[in-house]
Amino acid sequence: MDRHEYYMREALKEAKLAGEKGEVPVGAVVVLQDEIIGRGHNQREIGDDPTAHAEIVAIREAGKKLQSWRLTGAVLYVTLEPCPMCAGAMLQSRVERVVYGLDDPKAGSAGSLINILQFPGFNHSVKIIGGILAEESQKLLKDFFKINVRKNKFI
Amino acid sequence: MDRHEYYMREALKEAKLAGEKGEVPVGAVVVLQDEIIGRGHNQREIGDDPTAHAEIVAIREAGKKLQSWRLTGAVLYVTLEPCPMCAGAMLQSRVERVVYGLDDPKAGSAGSLINILQFPGFNHSVKIIGGILAEESQKLLKDFFKINVRKNKFI
Repeated sequence: MDRHEYYMREALKEAKLAGEKGEVPVGAVVVLQDEIIGRGHNQREIGDDPTAHAEIVAIREAGKKLQSWRLTGAVLYVTLEPCPMCAGAMLQSRVERVVYGLDDPKAGSAGSLINILQFPGFNHSVKIIGGILAEESQKLLKDFFKINVRKNKFI
Repeated sequence: MDRHEYYMREALKEAKLAGEKGEVPVGAVVVLQDEIIGRGHNQREIGDDPTAHAEIVAIREAGKKLQSWRLTGAVLYVTLEPCPMCAGAMLQSRVERVVYGLDDPKAGSAGSLINILQFPGFNHSVKIIGGILAEESQKLLKDFFKINVRKNKFI
């Protein structure tokens, strides 16, 4: 299997865990030298934590594992295009690349609405690959919102 | 004392705590209905956590306190203009306003380099006041870097 698809399937496993808990199903893994050093799924509702997106959870775990805030050379896989906060966290953590699944036209900050990851002037920039297993990510989100949208919790 | 100055002095106290621990001295408080509901100072080095900026720490504490990820109506005071990650976290947490101290021409995302807080298209925007007790904030940072810059830890 293609390397990007392999790790994106791990991120999709995390997304499913979020969905099972009633959280918007987005998942992420951080990979360094062919090893997963951080995993995360969205847990904003359970944690009463607006910062607990999949990417932030995975980045924090990776920092603990490396005992460093610098995740130099790491690749972050995430099932949905990152929001501005998560794109900013990728700049802060110095990850080398993000590989994401589905484009997010509403808040995507890897190029759909704005490209924060490669905005001129910041002291770091992050390489981008999008569209990996996008359909699987979209299906998870669509199925989730079909069930949950009436609760109006996610706006 | 002016309300903004009062709360900014609380944020400056947090910044000093960071400096005493060898962290870049930036501090923040979250205020709702004249009560401080979250406090934070930068702890990126100690926590091996690239997301542990003052604002993120304060926002997470406020969410726990309110038992909600939505900090609707809250004002976030921070001694330095927010970076992209922290500006994004303010959008995510739905804070009403940020009041900051010193402009950051290198990474400021409340207008100096980019204005993420009021970028067209996102589902929320954050009001901005800058320049409150900026000199105090600048002095803390300058004094800190005078001592610590040779360690080259902060690049």
